[in-house]
Amino acid sequence: MALKFAKRMDNMKASEIRELLALTAKPEIISFAGGLPAPELFPVKEWKEAVNKVLDERGQQALQYGPTEGYEPLRKHIVQRMNKVGVKDAKPDDFLILSGSQQGLDFMAKAFIDPGDQIIVESPTYLGALNAFKAYEPSFLEVELDDNGMKMDQLEDRLKNNDRVKFIYVISDFQNPSGKTWTMDRREKLIELANKYDVAILEDNPYGELRFEGEIQPSLKSLDTEGRVVFMGTFSKVFSPGIRLGWFCAAPEILDKFNKIKQGADLQTSTISQMELAQWLDDNDLEAHIQKIIDVYGKRKNVMVDAMKEYFPEGVTFTNPEGGLFLWVELPDYMNARDLAVKAIDKKVAYVPGGAFFADNIRENCFRCNYSCMDEEKIVEGVKRLAEVIKAEMK
Amino acid sequence: MALKFAKRMDNMKASEIRELLALTAKPEIISFAGGLPAPELFPVKEWKEAVNKVLDERGQQALQYGPTEGYEPLRKHIVQRMNKVGVKDAKPDDFLILSGSQQGLDFMAKAFIDPGDQIIVESPTYLGALNAFKAYEPSFLEVELDDNGMKMDQLEDRLKNNDRVKFIYVISDFQNPSGKTWTMDRREKLIELANKYDVAILEDNPYGELRFEGEIQPSLKSLDTEGRVVFMGTFSKVFSPGIRLGWFCAAPEILDKFNKIKQGADLQTSTISQMELAQWLDDNDLEAHIQKIIDVYGKRKNVMVDAMKEYFPEGVTFTNPEGGLFLWVELPDYMNARDLAVKAIDKKVAYVPGGAFFADNIRENCFRCNYSCMDEEKIVEGVKRLAEVIKAEMK
Repeated sequence: MALKFAKRMDNMKASEIRELLALTAKPEIISFAGGLPAPELFPVKEWKEAVNKVLDERGQQALQYGPTEGYEPLRKHIVQRMNKVGVKDAKPDDFLILSGSQQGLDFMAKAFIDPGDQIIVESPTYLGALNAFKAYEPSFLEVELDDNGMKMDQLEDRLKNNDRVKFIYVISDFQNPSGKTWTMDRREKLIELANKYDVAILEDNPYGELRFEGEIQPSLKSLDTEGRVVFMGTFSKVFSPGIRLGWFCAAPEILDKFNKIKQGADLQTSTISQMELAQWLDDNDLEAHIQKIIDVYGKRKNVMVDAMKEYFPEGVTFTNPEGGLFLWVELPDYMNARDLAVKAIDKKVAYVPGGAFFADNIRENCFRCNYSCMDEEKIVEGVKRLAEVIKAEMK
Repeated sequence: MALKFAKRMDNMKASEIRELLALTAKPEIISFAGGLPAPELFPVKEWKEAVNKVLDERGQQALQYGPTEGYEPLRKHIVQRMNKVGVKDAKPDDFLILSGSQQGLDFMAKAFIDPGDQIIVESPTYLGALNAFKAYEPSFLEVELDDNGMKMDQLEDRLKNNDRVKFIYVISDFQNPSGKTWTMDRREKLIELANKYDVAILEDNPYGELRFEGEIQPSLKSLDTEGRVVFMGTFSKVFSPGIRLGWFCAAPEILDKFNKIKQGADLQTSTISQMELAQWLDDNDLEAHIQKIIDVYGKRKNVMVDAMKEYFPEGVTFTNPEGGLFLWVELPDYMNARDLAVKAIDKKVAYVPGGAFFADNIRENCFRCNYSCMDEEKIVEGVKRLAEVIKAEMK
């Protein structure tokens, strides 16, 4: 037998994170490699109440097929989420419910990308997005990040010198993996350039509401003047990833394409999950719940940053995010975080080597650390172990 | 703004069924157009018990991320489902859990189809499959069905004269839309031809366990000698479509591709839905539940067939399925079921015009009727109304 797969399969690799997670699942390993929310914060009791209410009152409906665009009462709740990131005029009809926002990455490339078309991405960027996009055989154009967002001269250079750019993919708040957040100036400039060069923007915003300090930034969607920003939100980080619920907010012309794609891809997102979440949102205060998450993650982030300040040798730098789940460590140029990861696992501590987060110009002297899903004591102990491993490599 | 979408979007239409369903949702219309399971058969009470058990005992796990391949205890239960269709040696590792089996249609084309590659389909076939496949820009080769399955001389002709056939898509049991079931001879011949011409087979088997009479046929997968059959199963028709749970059973080499695709497409299927279903299957007798469904659907099918025999004019024929949810009506050549549908809706009865189920050689003198989701009285009344509409067009 010699079945021939599609060409796209040559590009598609298993996520290094998922494979690494398998390796680091042993209880004795302190793992900063995952991106898991803290399970002790899941509102299991209140969820159970909501679920029982749905099943008592509308059980048959919950187990039946539902509309492709999603359960309307849930879409009504999402109006408030959009409000919080500055989109004041969104209506339930502006949303498509997704089976997690990862599905949106797939749909965006499916709607826009013919083989050879170009996607502009941050450097580094979310490796799950790179993998999803690769199925549609794009080429990537990277734009470096500084502390304020993408470097705008580089971005304009890419836009000016390439004629197959279909969209710019951006995580503007507490980016995965870097933890960086775009300033208002850069956001406005990005919209201006997208308008000028007539390309779409995919705004991936899973963490925006998880801000430990300062004010929530206006989303790119809220600055969108021509309906070219596709906003992707999710309940994975503010509620639960296990229920797989996310959404698109986009202009009708684009949303219509996504609806057709959704029909082919999985017909609809789980009726029962949508109804249960809508019930939970009716009966509970999501804002208060988010505040609980912020309090815990904010402390853990501080503990991680403080420990890195104390134990990491000079020459190693790291970001200090104002929100989200991740921070980013830069080692001296001569170090390779991929090689170092093996030694770290020997010392029973793990992270994700940074190389995985670059589309093309791979840098290997960096790595991503997650701080959301372990207690403060473990964070300190893990950083100490990491510091030992790094120190042993310092020249 | 003039955003350019990918070429594939030119091929993708909204499902006619979904749009028709919207039209026929009014309570006064008797609709044979849908494909909904009977909601009164959903085991809401037992589901609630399972859900509460999961949330009481493993609530945090249920709301957390889980593995891409799916929840292992659920995959263990699927071993039994495969057993029932004659696959005796399947192991949990041979499965990938899908967010409904529609997702499998998308993944199959994603894994195998480059633009211009060919897919052999039954004529007629499931229109949701055609729509899913079209996203990958294949061309379709149709093979006519007789009462025993695909016409094998036509199939071999297509295989012999085309060199870009990647797979053959087949619903071998109680096909949607025709209600037809392949004989054993044809199943064996299909495997023989797939081996000879080195192509894969996608076996879509949502209804196989819903057999009203006779013995369950061995699945194509159970006859597979070279690991080239990809089996797609679902809990939508034997349990609930609202929970969106299906599965692939395939050879490791193929399953590995699907796992990569799954990671990009939506990371994983809902953790909580999988755990809840596994718990329900631990605590309840699915076989007894399926028997209940069979009893009800079998009666409804008989009522529909009997009413058609009584009321439809001569010159109109229809299938008499041994299982499943659908039967197929053929009108005299000069009639057009698409035009007739408008008149039928005027008379407050609906069906899906047959033209939607053909890839290329569209025939318009036929339509699909669903009998699973309404009571027997309504079925008789609906058939009477339909008969009136048809009679008025007879020459």
